[in-house]
Amino acid sequence: MVSVAEASQIIQSVKVKVNKVSIPVEQVTGRVLAERIFADRDLPPFNRVAMDGIAINSKSFKAQQQFKLENIQPAGAPQTELQQPEACIEVMTGAVLPGGTDAVIRYEDVVIRNGYATIQLREVAAGMNIHKQGSDAKKEDILLEPGQVLSPAEISLLASVGKTQVTVFDFPLTAIISSGDELVDISVLPEPHQIRRSNIYAVQAAMMELGWRGDGYHLHDNKEMMKDKLRELLAHYDILILSGGVSKGKFDFIPEVLNSLGIEKLFHQVSQKPGKPFWFGKSAEGKIVFALPGNPVSTFLCFYRYVKPWMLMTMDVVVKKSQAILSADVTFKPSLTYFLQVSLRNDNGRLMADPTPGGGSGDFANLKNVDGFIELPAERNVFKAGEVFDFYAFR
Amino acid sequence: MVSVAEASQIIQSVKVKVNKVSIPVEQVTGRVLAERIFADRDLPPFNRVAMDGIAINSKSFKAQQQFKLENIQPAGAPQTELQQPEACIEVMTGAVLPGGTDAVIRYEDVVIRNGYATIQLREVAAGMNIHKQGSDAKKEDILLEPGQVLSPAEISLLASVGKTQVTVFDFPLTAIISSGDELVDISVLPEPHQIRRSNIYAVQAAMMELGWRGDGYHLHDNKEMMKDKLRELLAHYDILILSGGVSKGKFDFIPEVLNSLGIEKLFHQVSQKPGKPFWFGKSAEGKIVFALPGNPVSTFLCFYRYVKPWMLMTMDVVVKKSQAILSADVTFKPSLTYFLQVSLRNDNGRLMADPTPGGGSGDFANLKNVDGFIELPAERNVFKAGEVFDFYAFR
Repeated sequence: MVSVAEASQIIQSVKVKVNKVSIPVEQVTGRVLAERIFADRDLPPFNRVAMDGIAINSKSFKAQQQFKLENIQPAGAPQTELQQPEACIEVMTGAVLPGGTDAVIRYEDVVIRNGYATIQLREVAAGMNIHKQGSDAKKEDILLEPGQVLSPAEISLLASVGKTQVTVFDFPLTAIISSGDELVDISVLPEPHQIRRSNIYAVQAAMMELGWRGDGYHLHDNKEMMKDKLRELLAHYDILILSGGVSKGKFDFIPEVLNSLGIEKLFHQVSQKPGKPFWFGKSAEGKIVFALPGNPVSTFLCFYRYVKPWMLMTMDVVVKKSQAILSADVTFKPSLTYFLQVSLRNDNGRLMADPTPGGGSGDFANLKNVDGFIELPAERNVFKAGEVFDFYAFR
Repeated sequence: MVSVAEASQIIQSVKVKVNKVSIPVEQVTGRVLAERIFADRDLPPFNRVAMDGIAINSKSFKAQQQFKLENIQPAGAPQTELQQPEACIEVMTGAVLPGGTDAVIRYEDVVIRNGYATIQLREVAAGMNIHKQGSDAKKEDILLEPGQVLSPAEISLLASVGKTQVTVFDFPLTAIISSGDELVDISVLPEPHQIRRSNIYAVQAAMMELGWRGDGYHLHDNKEMMKDKLRELLAHYDILILSGGVSKGKFDFIPEVLNSLGIEKLFHQVSQKPGKPFWFGKSAEGKIVFALPGNPVSTFLCFYRYVKPWMLMTMDVVVKKSQAILSADVTFKPSLTYFLQVSLRNDNGRLMADPTPGGGSGDFANLKNVDGFIELPAERNVFKAGEVFDFYAFR
């Protein structure tokens, strides 16, 4: 048996070859960037007019001065030039600042009559209302680094530098495999002693949020059939995420079968609740097997505690640390790390974790009421309201 | 000009008909549930063995007592029955509790030898290690309500009750339309006075995170062409999200053109920075037009402040309030609500908002460094570190 910290460290030390793939920018939301993005021009690429109004040479300005309207500079037109230093040019937001001008006065601060603009300001400073060329980024500056999760903000940047195709990390081939003879397909009406197999749907959905896909399979509790099927899956997939068959039951053949197929056990059992029977291993060829306990809540929590951070690590994603404040006293007797399901509440900017433990590791109906879990260390039994613990989010 | 609160209230009072669509459970991640989900059986559907071990009749127990192994109850097998009250049945996690038994003793607390199990506990309580039928939910209980955003937790529940197809809210037909002659397609190498049009990509990506799709269009700064194109789009789409053309510029024709097409202005200009020129209206037939300012940061912030909450509202989603703690003093002179871009930092469970204003409403490169914005009220100019403000997240 290993501790949660040991299990986590062992998993994080296992590398997998993550490929790269180029996909259209319209499809990259949620994917992880796998290339450096450079500015192909200065940002902005020219001295950009930031307000609708007039552009003048600030040296010509005295309070209340009138400027003759000489020309107009629309956005999207090539740069014009101020001919007479005492005149002005009407300029539109997004336009190139006309040559010979260095300040923009907003229409709100100008009265225009009979071809003249009268400025209603006491002072005009050079650079006013101008978005200076290169002030946001210089040509060749690095705008984005690999490992960046692509949200709408980054997609805006990618579009602006003309990235119609973006290189993102591709997911390794992954199979998600449930086991247990009590489980039937979700389209089937279960017999009284059966239940529908929901775990692989939850894991598939959770992977999809990271842009990963997993193909679903099911194994029966028959050692030879398991072995044949897992051999076949290991030949095709890089990563296997199993659910069930790793505990002490008479038909929990997974560890034995994996061992016989050349998957080296890196640990079996973690001093945690739920999810103690968790098994993890890899083969000499680099196949990686997460064999999660089959109880729905155990599968779910182990995915978020171990598998998801590992997936992010393989794609160079730096995860910001998240913590929450326990809102009520909790006592937990076993000498195990306790993954306490919580509902999160934002109390004046403080993330309060309201314990919502539900009915144990089989009670997946409870998951709809929780936002994640906090990790209560194994060394203690009593946890006080107001204490701060690491938080793992489900949503 | 309206206040931010007024703009928000006007928008939230405008309803749109949101359709429903039935899609496979494998595709519902991030979508919003549009039907009630009931438990089709008790959860769990039977008294479920929660640990691998032996099941006994607790009345037969005395400390250290030996129990003859009578039978085995695997998961997925029909219920067996204890024949002799002094005997026991080996039971596996997930199995039906055998008839005549009422307690499960874990293998860890039992020694098995020569066909007998010796219990190593001083006490055995009825109900031990049994996940009682109906303890999580009763048949016909409501498990999920419409308006629930479907995350992996809910997908697990949907699968468990056999929902292969799920009814979710469908998005209205939406067009996302940029305008401005300085903008060229992202696949084009811009002339010195041009930039690539990135806004619609950002808005499309942000909509996609809500499961909404929007088709992209571009308008040139020509009043007649604009009118023709917008007439055509209004005939086809329920919702138009425009970016640009609503300010004081000579070629900002959007409000005039929309008015001529029968779109009633509900407000124009909001006392906020950035995004003051925001225009919003609707037609008698119920077409809804968000005409956002064209500066990239303005478009982006207005989307998250107004459009996204409105989209969620139309789908009955209850949004949890989010606030963050300002980490440094900020002074903002204009009598406008200030959307201050911030980077979020979790400091011992406290959400600290580090001001990251960037270079103004044209500086979209800054968005990659920010997690959202806090809303600083218009009535004040000085905001102190430690004060708490509403937070709008980008990621």
